[in-house]
Amino acid sequence: MNIFGAVESGGTKFVCMVATGPDNILAETRFPTTDPDETLRKTVDFFVENRQDYPLKALGIGTFGPMDLDPKSPTFGFITTTPKAGWNQTDITGILAAALKIPVAVDTDVNAAALGEHRWGAAQGLDPMIYITIGTGIGAGGIYHGKPMHGLVHPEVGHIRIPHDRNVDPFEGICPYHKDCLEGLASGKALEKRWGQPAKSLPDGHPAWELEADYLALALVNLICALSPKRIVLGGGVMKQDHLLSMVRRRVQHLLNNYIQSPIILHNIQEYIVPPGLKGRSGGLGAIALAIDLFDQSR
Amino acid sequence: MNIFGAVESGGTKFVCMVATGPDNILAETRFPTTDPDETLRKTVDFFVENRQDYPLKALGIGTFGPMDLDPKSPTFGFITTTPKAGWNQTDITGILAAALKIPVAVDTDVNAAALGEHRWGAAQGLDPMIYITIGTGIGAGGIYHGKPMHGLVHPEVGHIRIPHDRNVDPFEGICPYHKDCLEGLASGKALEKRWGQPAKSLPDGHPAWELEADYLALALVNLICALSPKRIVLGGGVMKQDHLLSMVRRRVQHLLNNYIQSPIILHNIQEYIVPPGLKGRSGGLGAIALAIDLFDQSR
Repeated sequence: MNIFGAVESGGTKFVCMVATGPDNILAETRFPTTDPDETLRKTVDFFVENRQDYPLKALGIGTFGPMDLDPKSPTFGFITTTPKAGWNQTDITGILAAALKIPVAVDTDVNAAALGEHRWGAAQGLDPMIYITIGTGIGAGGIYHGKPMHGLVHPEVGHIRIPHDRNVDPFEGICPYHKDCLEGLASGKALEKRWGQPAKSLPDGHPAWELEADYLALALVNLICALSPKRIVLGGGVMKQDHLLSMVRRRVQHLLNNYIQSPIILHNIQEYIVPPGLKGRSGGLGAIALAIDLFDQSR
Repeated sequence: MNIFGAVESGGTKFVCMVATGPDNILAETRFPTTDPDETLRKTVDFFVENRQDYPLKALGIGTFGPMDLDPKSPTFGFITTTPKAGWNQTDITGILAAALKIPVAVDTDVNAAALGEHRWGAAQGLDPMIYITIGTGIGAGGIYHGKPMHGLVHPEVGHIRIPHDRNVDPFEGICPYHKDCLEGLASGKALEKRWGQPAKSLPDGHPAWELEADYLALALVNLICALSPKRIVLGGGVMKQDHLLSMVRRRVQHLLNNYIQSPIILHNIQEYIVPPGLKGRSGGLGAIALAIDLFDQSR
């Protein structure tokens, strides 16, 4: 059995994993994201400590961004213009490849999570599909015609613009670039700012959730109309509110208003807009899938 | 030289073409779209009349929709739930294949136009790219990772939701499904309804154009954030207003507000959002490209 490594590099925590696949996770650790030196040293240490038992064929990284995914660029694999203190222009890919001396594949955290859910999770084998995380921030990745979605850069779904009726919701939004883009209105951070308490402490019947479902549904409608995915996986901390998912589904149907004549949207939307299948490991296992694909391509 | 046929099936007119490629168009005709029997008979007649001089290896069709593009579906290649009188559930693909007895490839009109512009036009070799038509209606197609964009169905970009400030624009929108979706606010038909005169008769300094540029820019920002295309081609009758394109570009830059740190968006947006390169033949030549690809795959 070939063994692979995964790094899920998040803005608040790092998860490192050694596995052969989703059913055989051999080692795993998580620690807070501090400065790049300390955080990447801990990452290297984890894989070095496990090296004797679990020698790796390749490493996959799914990281927060924005990042440079242009293979022809001198800063390929770098975290680029992040506002996160200390991480601006960090060559996460090169540093880990040099320290561990194994092939390294890299993508955004959300593309890794999408790949994980596409390979082994709630959207297995479905192409195109998208994975959206609604947490502190909002982001999305996807698989389109067999590969993670990249283009000029990578999708930045958190920053799409949606209708915002200030008579209903006078909150101006928190995005430092766009104020009331999707992330500015509907991220966990926006919920906390608007309602003066953390999203997870807002009770089920709170008006926050109707508004949140409406904003998320408007975003999903736009992604359905732009991409026509075969399944949408919704992850992230805000989606842990169980009742929110069914509110979003109903609202998507209402907004589409029978325009898209697809049975799964009209009659089985609970199979179309779904929670992750990999239980908190979408990104980590997606990074394992990145490593496997890199290894397979190089053989 | 292999010769191919193309059908650009539009809601108001049909264009039929015989060509070997963009620089060698051998025959071409156009006629109004009436009922399916008459329109498809004229289509067949054109290719039959030309058959002796120009025997075809394959035919490509780019058609208005919505259409069924699922190869496993019994209604594959059909125009499906169109409101266009008489065309509901029309097997355009099967009828032309049976009459002409040649292989037929089919896609949406906008995916065909995208393929044409990607193969030979203003987005040559750029992947992903999108083509948007802003005419009587609004639609988009694209190439993503080598192939036209299909998924659950096909993109329906005309129906994305964008911010609509009723204090600035009290017009309620004309989409029969969604009222003030993109098409409901910014299509040629919407312009005509809102301002009481055809779009093309509105003078350059008319306030209609600021509003139109704003709506189109909001839609482009959403597509940039969702898809990250390497180039966007804007076609259709409404875009024939020369000054509109530069207004849209400026407004896209303003709305993105330097968030996407890509030099072409920051400094060369005139090379990023561009008019079609195939001068009214994006769709027809795209259908030729569909036919060529089908022929190449079958060899």
